[in-house]
Amino acid sequence: MDKIGRKPERAKSDRVDLYRILDATQVGVLSTIKDGKPWSIPTLYARVNDRIVLHGSTGAGALRHVAAGAEATFCVYVMDAIVVADNLFNSSANYRSAVVRGQLQKLTEAEALDGLTRMSEGLIPGRSTEVVATSTKELAATLAIALPIEDDNWTAKERTGGPGESDVDPDAWTGIVPIITTYGEPEPSEYTPTGKPVPDSVAGLWRCSAGEQELA
Amino acid sequence: MDKIGRKPERAKSDRVDLYRILDATQVGVLSTIKDGKPWSIPTLYARVNDRIVLHGSTGAGALRHVAAGAEATFCVYVMDAIVVADNLFNSSANYRSAVVRGQLQKLTEAEALDGLTRMSEGLIPGRSTEVVATSTKELAATLAIALPIEDDNWTAKERTGGPGESDVDPDAWTGIVPIITTYGEPEPSEYTPTGKPVPDSVAGLWRCSAGEQELA
Repeated sequence: MDKIGRKPERAKSDRVDLYRILDATQVGVLSTIKDGKPWSIPTLYARVNDRIVLHGSTGAGALRHVAAGAEATFCVYVMDAIVVADNLFNSSANYRSAVVRGQLQKLTEAEALDGLTRMSEGLIPGRSTEVVATSTKELAATLAIALPIEDDNWTAKERTGGPGESDVDPDAWTGIVPIITTYGEPEPSEYTPTGKPVPDSVAGLWRCSAGEQELA
Repeated sequence: MDKIGRKPERAKSDRVDLYRILDATQVGVLSTIKDGKPWSIPTLYARVNDRIVLHGSTGAGALRHVAAGAEATFCVYVMDAIVVADNLFNSSANYRSAVVRGQLQKLTEAEALDGLTRMSEGLIPGRSTEVVATSTKELAATLAIALPIEDDNWTAKERTGGPGESDVDPDAWTGIVPIITTYGEPEPSEYTPTGKPVPDSVAGLWRCSAGEQELA
């Protein structure tokens, strides 16, 4: 695996750091090679133990094409802050990112079911216990694939803190502007009966988010 | 260019739609092929007219490797909402995404300077007028590359709205939970003189964001 050449102080080498980054978001970019050219899509995912689990429709030709054995990368990032220096060159961003490389594996039905549930739990904790389980027919329409996380097939990076000391204007304001992602108030669909309460899992997501906003 | 096979109703074919998505975020994933394998990194970017401009250090070996003429994809996404259906299978996410494909081009110094300024303006509107211009020395340390946007080398997708009609439990609450990205209060670095006011551009970013939070 390539070593991180630039800014090595930002590199993370513990698997726990990688998992922390992978568990902090639910979307990443899957890239592979198709017809000799790079091919990428953004996709939801879940980390299930030492695998990154992705899914799509079995009708999605491109995904089917890359599902079995293709070399791939999966890249995730989380933006944490804008870093304001006293000049444009040293301005930057605080972020966490990870790239996992390897060959895609097709999952068994049981693994796919578990992966889909984990993906749902990653988006809305508790939701999977409120609804009926994924049916055999639904599962048959789903292509679930995974990228294994091994000891040496990934890189993880994190930039934290403010800008360095000013070298243009020592009297300048420099610092960071935090980037905060929260959830807005749940909006019922046109199919929801009037007065129907928001499910606990959905309400929890929003309340948790609103609480974080107050704490910030 | 591949047509979007799945969910064609989500495909966008107007360049104005593509630009709207590209202009809605500042980070994307650049992917290319290195040593016969997929290679990806997350990176800041700016759309400058009909090009996606990226930059890195001239000391970054990997980026230098792919800078001139390599086939690449650039993938961006924005998450807008979690879509809550009455079962896991139909639960989804509202998102906007775009993938641009083509060969990377190296920029001239003048193009690089413009691109770096636009990248800064994308992160903090107005900041480039408050600080000294990027120096010739800084510019020499920067590798600026671009991916051209042509008529047929991109795809753009957008999912909006709620889930479809419930097919498991017609009495269920279904709907969406908006995902909102805002800026927190600017935090001065240790190098900022006590009492130094936050620059107008940085204050504007925060105020604008706080206003949106109140409106939400």
